[in-house]
Amino acid sequence: MLRQIAILGPGLLGASIMQAARARGQAARLTAWSRSERTRAQCVGHPWCDAVVEDPRECVRGADLVVACVPVDRIGPLLELVAGDLAADAVVTDVGSTKAGVCAAAERVLPAGRFVGSHPMAGSEKSGPAHASPELFAGRVCFVTPTAGSAAAAVARVEQFWQALGMRVAKETPETHDRIVARVSHLPHAVAAALCALLATQPTAWGAFAGQGLRDTTRVAGGDPGLWRAIFQENRTAVLAALADYQQVLEQLRMALAAEDFGAVTALLAQGQRWRNRWEGENPAPRTGAGGA
Amino acid sequence: MLRQIAILGPGLLGASIMQAARARGQAARLTAWSRSERTRAQCVGHPWCDAVVEDPRECVRGADLVVACVPVDRIGPLLELVAGDLAADAVVTDVGSTKAGVCAAAERVLPAGRFVGSHPMAGSEKSGPAHASPELFAGRVCFVTPTAGSAAAAVARVEQFWQALGMRVAKETPETHDRIVARVSHLPHAVAAALCALLATQPTAWGAFAGQGLRDTTRVAGGDPGLWRAIFQENRTAVLAALADYQQVLEQLRMALAAEDFGAVTALLAQGQRWRNRWEGENPAPRTGAGGA
Repeated sequence: MLRQIAILGPGLLGASIMQAARARGQAARLTAWSRSERTRAQCVGHPWCDAVVEDPRECVRGADLVVACVPVDRIGPLLELVAGDLAADAVVTDVGSTKAGVCAAAERVLPAGRFVGSHPMAGSEKSGPAHASPELFAGRVCFVTPTAGSAAAAVARVEQFWQALGMRVAKETPETHDRIVARVSHLPHAVAAALCALLATQPTAWGAFAGQGLRDTTRVAGGDPGLWRAIFQENRTAVLAALADYQQVLEQLRMALAAEDFGAVTALLAQGQRWRNRWEGENPAPRTGAGGA
Repeated sequence: MLRQIAILGPGLLGASIMQAARARGQAARLTAWSRSERTRAQCVGHPWCDAVVEDPRECVRGADLVVACVPVDRIGPLLELVAGDLAADAVVTDVGSTKAGVCAAAERVLPAGRFVGSHPMAGSEKSGPAHASPELFAGRVCFVTPTAGSAAAAVARVEQFWQALGMRVAKETPETHDRIVARVSHLPHAVAAALCALLATQPTAWGAFAGQGLRDTTRVAGGDPGLWRAIFQENRTAVLAALADYQQVLEQLRMALAAEDFGAVTALLAQGQRWRNRWEGENPAPRTGAGGA
C-alpha cells in the first residue's frame, strides 16, 4: 500500500483514480488539488478524499505517488511549481493522451528519474468528479512510457499502481506511444473529417443517396472540432507522419486505378480486407458502449 | 398496365422486379431469359414468371419494357444481340450500378431514343432468384439517367415503372449519377480500404490499442476485394476524380497542421462536423439493417 497519493486535477480521471485507489486499498491517504473552487467543493466529504487543498505544493507534500491529471500543456509548469515540495521518494506520473512532449517537459523540471508518463485508455463523454467511477479503469489498457532517464523503481511503482486499479499495462517509449495513437485513433479521425469536409462542398441533395457505409465511415467526424484540434496540436509530429504515410497508400491506389492496373487495385483492397477481418476477429466489438479513449 | 416485361438475367434484382411487377399488377405477361440453366429452373412454376427461355431474342419479342439485369460489362453486347427482335414500341432499361458507360454502349446498339438507364438503390448481400422479394424496392431511391438522345415517352415509362414498384425516382444525367455514387459510396470505401492497408504494414500488436472509432471508420473495408475492384473499374473516371478531390482536402489538412495554422485545422474539422451532423439529422439510421446499394 502506498503512503499517500496526490492527485493534481481531480476531474473525471483524477477523481476516478482516487475512488479506485480507495476501493482497492492502494493508499493510506488521498489528497487532491484543483484550481477550481467548484471542483474542490465536489471532492469534500467523500470517503475517497482525505484532503482537498488550494495549493498544489501542499497537496504533494508527503506523497509517494503524484498523478498530474491536468491538460497536457499545463503538466510541465505545474510540476515545476511543486518540484521543490516533493518527498525524497516521490514518483510522479500523469494521464495525458500524448507522451513525448509531456515526458520531456516533466523531466526538465523534476529530479532525475522520478517521472514516468502514463496514458490510461479510459474515459467518457462526461467530465468532472461528479461522473467519476471506481471501475473506470478495470479491464482497460494503460500505456506506461519510461525513458532512458527513468529510475527502474519508479517505473515499477507506476506499473504496479495501474495494474492494482485493474488495468493491463503496455510499456512503450513516449515516441512509440505517440506513433501508435496517431495511427489507430488520430488518423482515422482525420480521414473521416476530411471526407466530410469534401462532402460539405458537394450538392446537399447528394446526401440522400448515401447509406450505411458512409454513416459508419464518417461517424467520428461528428466529434468536437476544438477537442480534436487540441489532440492534433499535442500530437502534431506523429499525426503529420501518419497522414503522410496514409497519403502515400491512397496515392498508390489512385495511381493503380489511373494506370488500369487492376491487379494492384485488388491487391491493395485485399491487404486492407485481410487486416480488417483479422483485427475484428482479435478485437470483437464490446457488448456495452461504455468507456473509450 | 404494361403488355409484357422481359427480364434479361433474373437474379436477385431481376426476379425481384418480376415478383414486384406481378404483385402490383404492372404487366400482363412476364418473361425471363438466363444463360444459366440453374437460374432458369429456379424461375419455372412461379406465379411471377409466365415464361423462361434459353434465347434472349425470344424473351424480348412482344415486350414493351425490357430490363437488362446482367453485369454492366455485358449489357452492351446483350442488347446488341436482341436489338433486331425488339417490338416497335419497346423501351429498354437496366439496373447497373454505373451509368455513363452503360448508357453510351446501349445507345450505340439500340434504335434511337429507346434506352433509358436506371440504378435502383436496392440489394442484399445474397444473390440469385431464390432470395428475391417483391418488397425489395419499396421506399428506396431509383436513379433514372436519360440522355439528350432519350425519347420523352421512354423516360416517362421507365420513371412510372419504378414508381409503381414503390421507389422514389431521382433523375440525373449518367455522368452526374456516376459522380454522386463515386463520392457517397465508392470514395468512402477507398478511404477505409487505404486506412486498413496502411495499418496492415504496422506492428500487429498495435491493433489492441484501437477502439470503436477505428472499428466504424474501417467497417466497409471488410467488403469483397473482387467486387470492389469491379466497381472501381466500372466507375473508374468518377472514382479517380473523387479520389483526387479527397486527396486535395487531406493535403489541406496536413499542410495546415505542418504550418501550425490551427485556425485552419479547426475550420476544416468544423466544416466536416457541421456536414456530418446535418446529414445524420436529415438521414437518420434506419431501424432495420435491410437493403443497401
